[in-house]
Amino acid sequence: MSRGFYIGRFQPFHNGHLSMVEQIAEDVDELVLGIGSADDSHSVRNPFTAGERIMMITKSLVEYDLVTYAVPIEDLERNSVWVSHVQSMSPDFEVAYSNNPLVIQLFREANIEIRQSPMFNRDVLEGTEVRERMINGDDWEALVPEAVVEVVDEIDGIERIQMISGSDSDNS
Amino acid sequence: MSRGFYIGRFQPFHNGHLSMVEQIAEDVDELVLGIGSADDSHSVRNPFTAGERIMMITKSLVEYDLVTYAVPIEDLERNSVWVSHVQSMSPDFEVAYSNNPLVIQLFREANIEIRQSPMFNRDVLEGTEVRERMINGDDWEALVPEAVVEVVDEIDGIERIQMISGSDSDNS
Amino acid sequence: MSRGFYIGRFQPFHNGHLSMVEQIAEDVDELVLGIGSADDSHSVRNPFTAGERIMMITKSLVEYDLVTYAVPIEDLERNSVWVSHVQSMSPDFEVAYSNNPLVIQLFREANIEIRQSPMFNRDVLEGTEVRERMINGDDWEALVPEAVVEVVDEIDGIERIQMISGSDSDNS
Amino acid sequence: MSRGFYIGRFQPFHNGHLSMVEQIAEDVDELVLGIGSADDSHSVRNPFTAGERIMMITKSLVEYDLVTYAVPIEDLERNSVWVSHVQSMSPDFEVAYSNNPLVIQLFREANIEIRQSPMFNRDVLEGTEVRERMINGDDWEALVPEAVVEVVDEIDGIERIQMISGSDSDNS
Amino acid sequence: MSRGFYIGRFQPFHNGHLSMVEQIAEDVDELVLGIGSADDSHSVRNPFTAGERIMMITKSLVEYDLVTYAVPIEDLERNSVWVSHVQSMSPDFEVAYSNNPLVIQLFREANIEIRQSPMFNRDVLEGTEVRERMINGDDWEALVPEAVVEVVDEIDGIERIQMISGSDSDNS
Amino acid sequence: MSRGFYIGRFQPFHNGHLSMVEQIAEDVDELVLGIGSADDSHSVRNPFTAGERIMMITKSLVEYDLVTYAVPIEDLERNSVWVSHVQSMSPDFEVAYSNNPLVIQLFREANIEIRQSPMFNRDVLEGTEVRERMINGDDWEALVPEAVVEVVDEIDGIERIQMISGSDSDNS
Repeated sequence: MSRGFYIGRFQPFHNGHLSMVEQIAEDVDELVLGIGSADDSHSVRNPFTAGERIMMITKSLVEYDLVTYAVPIEDLERNSVWVSHVQSMSPDFEVAYSNNPLVIQLFREANIEIRQSPMFNRDVLEGTEVRERMINGDDWEALVPEAVVEVVDEIDGIERIQMISGSDSDNS
Repeated sequence: MSRGFYIGRFQPFHNGHLSMVEQIAEDVDELVLGIGSADDSHSVRNPFTAGERIMMITKSLVEYDLVTYAVPIEDLERNSVWVSHVQSMSPDFEVAYSNNPLVIQLFREANIEIRQSPMFNRDVLEGTEVRERMINGDDWEALVPEAVVEVVDEIDGIERIQMISGSDSDNS
Repeated sequence: MSRGFYIGRFQPFHNGHLSMVEQIAEDVDELVLGIGSADDSHSVRNPFTAGERIMMITKSLVEYDLVTYAVPIEDLERNSVWVSHVQSMSPDFEVAYSNNPLVIQLFREANIEIRQSPMFNRDVLEGTEVRERMINGDDWEALVPEAVVEVVDEIDGIERIQMISGSDSDNS
Repeated sequence: MSRGFYIGRFQPFHNGHLSMVEQIAEDVDELVLGIGSADDSHSVRNPFTAGERIMMITKSLVEYDLVTYAVPIEDLERNSVWVSHVQSMSPDFEVAYSNNPLVIQLFREANIEIRQSPMFNRDVLEGTEVRERMINGDDWEALVPEAVVEVVDEIDGIERIQMISGSDSDNS
Repeated sequence: MSRGFYIGRFQPFHNGHLSMVEQIAEDVDELVLGIGSADDSHSVRNPFTAGERIMMITKSLVEYDLVTYAVPIEDLERNSVWVSHVQSMSPDFEVAYSNNPLVIQLFREANIEIRQSPMFNRDVLEGTEVRERMINGDDWEALVPEAVVEVVDEIDGIERIQMISGSDSDNS
Repeated sequence: MSRGFYIGRFQPFHNGHLSMVEQIAEDVDELVLGIGSADDSHSVRNPFTAGERIMMITKSLVEYDLVTYAVPIEDLERNSVWVSHVQSMSPDFEVAYSNNPLVIQLFREANIEIRQSPMFNRDVLEGTEVRERMINGDDWEALVPEAVVEVVDEIDGIERIQMISGSDSDNS
């Protein structure tokens, strides 16, 4: 039995994430999805809470054979202990997946195997695209699994992100 | 008896804030002024300490009939618990006043009545304007209550903000 | 579809917890198990990491029909925002289960339905008993699901708790 | 004009505190009441929130001529910066009042005048006594100002402290 | 060249610590003395600041040939990342020295060599003894290096610890 | 005997820092080098850990007669208590050296002597320049002491900073 770890913010979980999970599924029996910046929400960059993101991930992956764990990872704002923090919050894993240079560097310095692929970039690009479409009222639904559309609707997520995008982050 | 809550950073308390308080005074018997970012000071955006801001507010409102409370609210850097945090630090209130989209969204999700008005924008605009005039040696006194001029003078506030505006926020 | 929330520290997940889950399963379709004090580990009271506890819970419940989520909840050390914190980290739930007086009081003040039962006490009593047996080399295996025995063995958990129980928590 | 600073937890504000304020009023024109452990609540030692304590203090002192400020002071858990923290949160003061040895020592090392009096001990003793009477259903009302009775009633404070006193601070 | 790491709170640095350093000096060329609980001070258990403890250590070891580094280590209150935290704050080391069971366990799980010795217990016992003698006005000077006596005198350390030992840690 | 305090981030320690130390050495017998942002590392602005920076400083100054202390100072993100925090972590000092406007202002408000010089700017400029050269593969070695080259080589520091400079600080 082998287990992988895939870190992301999943704001929201979209088709780029999904295809990445499908690709990883060929390598491992179980996969931990670490939900980064779990303590952040209600901002343009991180509109959804950790609990909402757990729902998106779990419902999107329910029909896959892969055993998955969605685990919130709060920010410690201290890169030097980040790998230990992740390890304490997650079921044990043998290999990590990421295309983020900082994440790759931190795992490497901790002597943990890390795998990347050029196509992984898709998840980064799509995250920003999906949030912009949500804000502008464009077709974001095409970029995410059906289950994510349902979760966003239930929580009035479009209203939320449109509202906070108007914030000047200044309450003076 | 009814009580309102008005959140701001009050850096410094100026005429825009004052006219907002006057308008709110028509609605409520008592008003809590929540001093946001209370733990920040000595920065261009937040030059004054919470204690200094309490003095500005209290002295500016001393002649008004309205019962007021000036309450420092430290940042928790976690939007999802911000409303609970405010409620724990403040005397109980029935209605909140703000024109900040994030604040409005957070109170709405917590099912607390929130009121806004187009004219509220004045307080945001004037905050930046007052600080810029302070830095540039222009006439900032015209934009704030007389009591605020006194507090700023007592603490050598102009010298402070001019000094830190020269900081490159880099002490390497 | 209804979802419940059951908070515990699960140090470790034992038969008392299991029978509580079985009882709750009669009420709800899905259950969130909130892993309290998720940031604590390697102490006599909290020997296991959040990741290790996720493994214990997930493996113990794998054969049950109930859909379950094991979610780490880090301590914020601030009772007044605890309910909001829990809500942000957890999938949405309609009813909470606990026999802990503080937890009950906090949910009540937040107007969230909370259910308790005299038999729930069993989980508290057994947690301490299991840890003491682990430290003393007595038969702790009888008090926990088979899957928990496996997890504890894999991580050399008995060696860990016995070692730290000898600590005088003083490294002077 | 002179201003004093009196730190306490005010859990709740009681007659010992009140007579201390009356005594200090002979020395100064204005008094800041620093509400210590402002971030703690819903515990036996700190049952009431900072906002509830602001209400108790403000309503109890409304008829006094003394100008008072009730200012929440959150714990930083770092004695070496405590005086600076208090100074940043409070309007400027010339003299501090306390009978707590740690507080006295910290102000002394910062070269701030600190006054004490044997009778000040009364406030410490009565705090514990009031909370115990609340828990046991004894006559606590005799030990606090009338306004505090009203606040505690409004928030169902007796139910709260009795409930949490049954907590074993263990939610395993 | 080899470097060792020795963690302690050094409240204060005493003869037990000194003889431990002398023993370690036979193993390594350089030694890092990690000053634990660096953020705590002005308490009976941790009376001295990190800066004061750096002075005690540096002055006590000035005549030794061993190259030493005195490095403050602030508490993170999170055992699972403690080793990474120590490693980020300290010059690189090959072997750690401690007799504290928790410290030993944490280094072992991180696969870092840890050495202990029955005689190391002396440092723990003497720390408490020295502080008690300071509080009671007994002969503490006999238990510490001459340089520590000088530092404690300079900062009026005896007055401080005697004062705070009278604190009931309650400022209600 | 006199002691000075010089705060910097030392990312890395370079020739501008070194000449500043040489200049200060004419004023004082001992010098504390406060390593600011000690808790940050693995970012473009703060690539090296506090422990790595201690090594750079200590090895670069080993041949100087000046007694030096390299002390990590973690960020508290609260300007109003920063001076007290520095004082608690550092051996006692009489005069501080800085050319950073914020640092100067904070020490002045705390009535601590602060000295600056137009030439001090060199350290700020060179810090950015060195890091940019590291990232671009240009000649950074010419700008730092020989000992710093060795430390950076040992820890594969160039690989680290080049890797993380490619990060879009987004792991979505």
